[in-house]
Amino acid sequence: MRVVVCIGGSVLAPDLDPRRVEAHGEVIEGLAAEGCSVAAVVGGGGVARDYIGTARELGANEVQLDRIGIDVTRINARLLIAALGADADPKVAQDYEDAGDALRRGDVSVMGGVMPGQTTDAVAAALAEYVGADLLVYATSVDGVYSADPDADADAEKYGRLTPAELVDVIAPMSRGAGASAPVDLLAAKLIERSGMRTIVLDGTDPDRIGTAVRRGDHGGTDVVP
Amino acid sequence: MRVVVCIGGSVLAPDLDPRRVEAHGEVIEGLAAEGCSVAAVVGGGGVARDYIGTARELGANEVQLDRIGIDVTRINARLLIAALGADADPKVAQDYEDAGDALRRGDVSVMGGVMPGQTTDAVAAALAEYVGADLLVYATSVDGVYSADPDADADAEKYGRLTPAELVDVIAPMSRGAGASAPVDLLAAKLIERSGMRTIVLDGTDPDRIGTAVRRGDHGGTDVVP
Amino acid sequence: MRVVVCIGGSVLAPDLDPRRVEAHGEVIEGLAAEGCSVAAVVGGGGVARDYIGTARELGANEVQLDRIGIDVTRINARLLIAALGADADPKVAQDYEDAGDALRRGDVSVMGGVMPGQTTDAVAAALAEYVGADLLVYATSVDGVYSADPDADADAEKYGRLTPAELVDVIAPMSRGAGASAPVDLLAAKLIERSGMRTIVLDGTDPDRIGTAVRRGDHGGTDVVP
Amino acid sequence: MRVVVCIGGSVLAPDLDPRRVEAHGEVIEGLAAEGCSVAAVVGGGGVARDYIGTARELGANEVQLDRIGIDVTRINARLLIAALGADADPKVAQDYEDAGDALRRGDVSVMGGVMPGQTTDAVAAALAEYVGADLLVYATSVDGVYSADPDADADAEKYGRLTPAELVDVIAPMSRGAGASAPVDLLAAKLIERSGMRTIVLDGTDPDRIGTAVRRGDHGGTDVVP
Amino acid sequence: MRVVVCIGGSVLAPDLDPRRVEAHGEVIEGLAAEGCSVAAVVGGGGVARDYIGTARELGANEVQLDRIGIDVTRINARLLIAALGADADPKVAQDYEDAGDALRRGDVSVMGGVMPGQTTDAVAAALAEYVGADLLVYATSVDGVYSADPDADADAEKYGRLTPAELVDVIAPMSRGAGASAPVDLLAAKLIERSGMRTIVLDGTDPDRIGTAVRRGDHGGTDVVP
Amino acid sequence: MRVVVCIGGSVLAPDLDPRRVEAHGEVIEGLAAEGCSVAAVVGGGGVARDYIGTARELGANEVQLDRIGIDVTRINARLLIAALGADADPKVAQDYEDAGDALRRGDVSVMGGVMPGQTTDAVAAALAEYVGADLLVYATSVDGVYSADPDADADAEKYGRLTPAELVDVIAPMSRGAGASAPVDLLAAKLIERSGMRTIVLDGTDPDRIGTAVRRGDHGGTDVVP
Ligand SMILES: Nc1ncnc2c1ncn2[C@@H]1O[C@H](COP(=O)(O)OP(=O)(O)OP(=O)(O)O)[C@@H](O)[C@H]1O
Ligand SMILES: Nc1ncnc2c1ncn2[C@@H]1O[C@H](COP(=O)(O)OP(=O)(O)OP(=O)(O)O)[C@@H](O)[C@H]1O
Ligand SMILES: Nc1ncnc2c1ncn2[C@@H]1O[C@H](COP(=O)(O)OP(=O)(O)OP(=O)(O)O)[C@@H](O)[C@H]1O
Ligand SMILES: Nc1ncnc2c1ncn2[C@@H]1O[C@H](COP(=O)(O)OP(=O)(O)OP(=O)(O)O)[C@@H](O)[C@H]1O
Ligand SMILES: Nc1ncnc2c1ncn2[C@@H]1O[C@H](COP(=O)(O)OP(=O)(O)OP(=O)(O)O)[C@@H](O)[C@H]1O
Ligand SMILES: [Co+2]
Ligand SMILES: [Co+2]
Ligand SMILES: [Co+2]
Ligand SMILES: [Co+2]
Ligand SMILES: [Co+2]
Ligand SMILES: [Co+2]
Ligand SMILES: [Mg+2]
Ligand SMILES: [Mg+2]
Repeated sequence: MRVVVCIGGSVLAPDLDPRRVEAHGEVIEGLAAEGCSVAAVVGGGGVARDYIGTARELGANEVQLDRIGIDVTRINARLLIAALGADADPKVAQDYEDAGDALRRGDVSVMGGVMPGQTTDAVAAALAEYVGADLLVYATSVDGVYSADPDADADAEKYGRLTPAELVDVIAPMSRGAGASAPVDLLAAKLIERSGMRTIVLDGTDPDRIGTAVRRGDHGGTDVVP
Repeated sequence: MRVVVCIGGSVLAPDLDPRRVEAHGEVIEGLAAEGCSVAAVVGGGGVARDYIGTARELGANEVQLDRIGIDVTRINARLLIAALGADADPKVAQDYEDAGDALRRGDVSVMGGVMPGQTTDAVAAALAEYVGADLLVYATSVDGVYSADPDADADAEKYGRLTPAELVDVIAPMSRGAGASAPVDLLAAKLIERSGMRTIVLDGTDPDRIGTAVRRGDHGGTDVVP
Repeated sequence: MRVVVCIGGSVLAPDLDPRRVEAHGEVIEGLAAEGCSVAAVVGGGGVARDYIGTARELGANEVQLDRIGIDVTRINARLLIAALGADADPKVAQDYEDAGDALRRGDVSVMGGVMPGQTTDAVAAALAEYVGADLLVYATSVDGVYSADPDADADAEKYGRLTPAELVDVIAPMSRGAGASAPVDLLAAKLIERSGMRTIVLDGTDPDRIGTAVRRGDHGGTDVVP
Repeated sequence: MRVVVCIGGSVLAPDLDPRRVEAHGEVIEGLAAEGCSVAAVVGGGGVARDYIGTARELGANEVQLDRIGIDVTRINARLLIAALGADADPKVAQDYEDAGDALRRGDVSVMGGVMPGQTTDAVAAALAEYVGADLLVYATSVDGVYSADPDADADAEKYGRLTPAELVDVIAPMSRGAGASAPVDLLAAKLIERSGMRTIVLDGTDPDRIGTAVRRGDHGGTDVVP
Repeated sequence: MRVVVCIGGSVLAPDLDPRRVEAHGEVIEGLAAEGCSVAAVVGGGGVARDYIGTARELGANEVQLDRIGIDVTRINARLLIAALGADADPKVAQDYEDAGDALRRGDVSVMGGVMPGQTTDAVAAALAEYVGADLLVYATSVDGVYSADPDADADAEKYGRLTPAELVDVIAPMSRGAGASAPVDLLAAKLIERSGMRTIVLDGTDPDRIGTAVRRGDHGGTDVVP
Repeated sequence: MRVVVCIGGSVLAPDLDPRRVEAHGEVIEGLAAEGCSVAAVVGGGGVARDYIGTARELGANEVQLDRIGIDVTRINARLLIAALGADADPKVAQDYEDAGDALRRGDVSVMGGVMPGQTTDAVAAALAEYVGADLLVYATSVDGVYSADPDADADAEKYGRLTPAELVDVIAPMSRGAGASAPVDLLAAKLIERSGMRTIVLDGTDPDRIGTAVRRGDHGGTDVVP
């Protein structure tokens, strides 16, 4: 089985706590030990947001801000690589080909962002398609896709199951307006739709859920099933 | 004044006719001669579509298809660079920083696609933001943004003027379903919205319209005004 | 056994027909399945010629034309990689070291042109030498080396067997004058002479001949035997 | 006049405060406006230390820790580039040649770390030599070189003036033992000695001191005069 | 006027004597001071031959030997760059585009070899074409093109003037057999024929001849005139 | 067992004698055949010194001189790679990650210098740490670390055993002053101290000592034991 796991920066390293990174590493090592081929895409989290905030005040444009965000995701990727030790390709994959190469050699591959204009959510969806993954997991800071932002709307209901097309329909209106956020961004949702990739969105603050989701499909989040 | 022009591959080189490429080059040379700083982003057109069709039948995945498309856009960029001669940076810019560098040195910069998952439409929007363009022009195969695909719907009406947010609203429903096409794709529209970039969508089969649009804002297409 | 196959662009993808590319891929897969180590060098064909013709009219110089040709050969290489699927290194080798690396790991390696001033014929000859090939096969649009251009001279006779030095002597006069063409170009012939590489020139429009030539040395073309 | 300024990460962005970065940018812009050719080398500061601490606990080795540190210095460099706007080369220089190139074109160049095993202190000293600087300024968190660590030893006395050889003699014993720190590290001091570069170590928490030091040689720190 | 000068390694640095390199640098500086745009391509000379001899005995193949030769030419290029100081692009150009870029910015550009299979003679001919040179000068260890190797044949006669086609005819037979040498190699001669480049072959052991040849066309060597 | 061997240029190829390089290759092949994972770092030797001397007279600065030195070390690395044949990664590793990659795949990896400001001695120490070596061997032109330069001081005594901290103490005073030389340079010694790496300094003019030292710890040089 081949899995791409997208781990939000705020989920991997909310405060650079090594035990959290270690826990994520252990889940991936466990999957690899069972013969699963795993690639991880790591987000930027709070450090990225802080740097981007400062750079924006200094007059950086959006492409420059994205570059800073990408740099931070790649440092976060180095943390996960350190936690994975001998199982992982020691280089942060710079593009899909690098990551595919590492998987072909039997390594776990870890990457961050790639190019301005694409979030790590979208990178994970494109990578899943590129390496022919059986499953794409978003380990994020909410426990699934809701009908509305659960932080803002107490009546928001979690979807247990969506088709990729429904995912796009749910996400599309969320991705308008400044500061909009969503558990998976619109470009990612559209790439999932394009490839018909089986996808799970789950609460990544408990890394063990990732392992359970891959092994038994049991995760308490949202299943996106083509 | 600084302008980014996105020239569709089917508009630049529908059948690799050098006179068409030459005509586009002359418009850009004219603008440069008047002191305008110009970057061009070139699409893939029919050659890209043919190669992608073949590769898809051979089992290539979407990321690989995008790579082929990007390669073709960069060859098209070389044609435009040849037409521009001494005015242009002789290298195809590989990313936004390369293009920005060339503009800072006073050259016209030409680029194609950049990364899988992003069309040249989106590249042009990101580049316009990165280089602080005053205007972004899409020279495409229709003469503006319509309420529906004018090829399919005889009642489609052309918009004379839209806000970036309205552009996103018009484009969003067009970008669903296989084979969907639009004069500007959704990621591009969202980048235009993010940056509040002044944008024109016009009929690029007559290259002179590009010059007129830049100089006098007179173009017969759709104005996107923040 | 280790083989380098040089497949002319017009032989691999005369009209971008996927079945033709597929057929070439199957021959290579068959050889690889028998334990043969295979590298392929792919030419530019008609698409390269069309682009080069247009670029020349636009005033591009010979180095720029070569660059365009190289880009097209690399797209053609992507087609063959797609056809080969899991057997091939998914990256187009950019130089001899890349290709050698892929062969060492047990992959089929595919490359196109490398640098202006060198045709893919010469690249194949240099690659064969670099990877210590036992055999170099030119799958081209004629069925061997003739005493004169068989298209132009009805009395041209096909050589069944030549030494590398004789190959150079036959090729040298053919490579003078505008529009000159030869089944293997002069630089390639000289590299074959330098390395004393066993070489076959055969009709590549029937891909099966390549397999037969490698397995049984039976091919209906010209044998170059040091 | 040509100056290389090494700005400690903790001095440039102790808490990612944009005003502090802005203030440093203004000093450099002021010097550039007066015709001074300026390159800046930026350190890692607290963010680097935090990441390195986490990675060390995860089992990363020293080279990997250095890589993380380098990545952070380059993000800090992006902040300073954003503050400098049009005066600076928008790319973070990756090596001495890149930085030299930018200075030759009249840009301010900003770089961070370069390779594991070399601090930004040493990078600045090597860069100063490479670009033929007239002056090298270390803007750090102490106001000069003391006879002992002023944080630990109340009797430490500040040197007003040292020769490069004396600088090495003072620094050498400081650079032993875990957690050792010094206002300029030993490799840097030895590079200063090798090139005989005029150098000033000053309190960088007040960016204006940098400008004063360059213009009038008045800075309240330590002068290293060959 | 734009000139490409190809300086044989044995002519530039027969024994690494700095005065010889300095003398070549002064000729180029003189031309540049008169407004001439100059690119130099430097050969490998004795150091290259020594290393290649050793590597051949160790079993390196021809491509690996060429790589070693290229590395040496690039070190020789660094010597000439050091001699040229501020006039030259401090980076050794790695390909034609790099060299063209440097000339466009008004720098002297220096390069060595580029790819296995191409000598620096051929690189110079391709570069001359790429940058649109008015003149290509080969500064070599003989004082022109002879009817036979003057070292071996006392009756060899120097040609005062040849057409490019005649040059190819003279060179072709010289370039057969092991250890063959010629003042300009066959691939270079064919590139000169292809581009119709005006070319001079002269005695480079006296660097001043290069300056005289460029300024007055007076050089005592062989003129190749299309 | 994993070993990094640093072979001085003057020890590997004092006069480019292939037998000497071959002898070094055989020692490494022997170790690899016994299952030892080996990386070699190769110095510059006499060729580097000659080129650097010439470039210094031509006015090159220290960074440029280091670049020349690095280029020569990499050519020397190619010689050793040729000698090693199929056991070695055919590419010269350009950084620690490349070398680590090759070792992970089971290849012998060979590298030279990396960046200006770091000798190959320091590169070897950093590489040993990066790849988690069990042992670092300096094969140099003296048979160990002495209390003073044995060439200059007849009373110099060889140390049989030192701690890393003692090594730094012994080396530090040697590394002052122009033309200073030491069997291991100061930056390397400090990296050895940082990592607590077991290290042997031995007479590399007899390559067999390297094999004996690795296998039996018997070498007649100096042991550095943490
Ligand atoms: N309909 C919705 N369903 C679920 N979450 C939603 C919805 N709309 C908005 N959200 C918000 O999306 C956010 C998803 O987490 P977020 O992307 O910020 O973190 P992450 O992906 O773990 O890390 P990173 O910082 O790397 O992106 C949550 O804050 C959640 O409140
Ligand atoms: N609402 C709409 N308004 C305008 N055009 C539309 C609309 N919906 C669909 N289209 C279609 O969008 C297409 C825009 O052109 P297209 O993107 O194919 O070519 P291009 O951008 O010039 O070249 P390239 O092949 O490089 O993309 C037209 O075919 C047009 O029919
Ligand atoms: N003899 C000394 N003279 C001056 N400072 C000393 C001495 N010995 C130790 N130090 C310490 O050196 C440190 C220099 O600052 P430090 O290198 O930590 O910050 P920085 O260079 O500004 O930022 P960065 O984190 O990027 O290196 C101070 O903490 C100071 O106490
Ligand atoms: N017909 C000929 N006319 C002139 N020279 C000839 C001829 N045939 C052979 N040669 C030989 O060609 C050689 C040209 O010099 P050579 O290429 O060795 O040195 P170079 O180009 O200056 O330096 P490098 O070592 O970089 O190539 C001379 O040794 C000369 O004897
Ligand atoms: N205390 C000392 N103990 C041992 N050797 C010393 C000492 N002090 C100085 N040396 C000198 O250090 C030198 C070590 O050799 P050196 O570094 O020149 O060559 P290498 O490392 O083999 O090759 P490379 O030229 O690549 O560096 C010897 O010349 C030796 O005389
Ligand atoms: Co997210
Ligand atoms: Co389009
Ligand atoms: Co052919
Ligand atoms: Co510091
Ligand atoms: Co020559
Ligand atoms: Co040494
Ligand atoms: Mg997020
Ligand atoms: Mg020669």
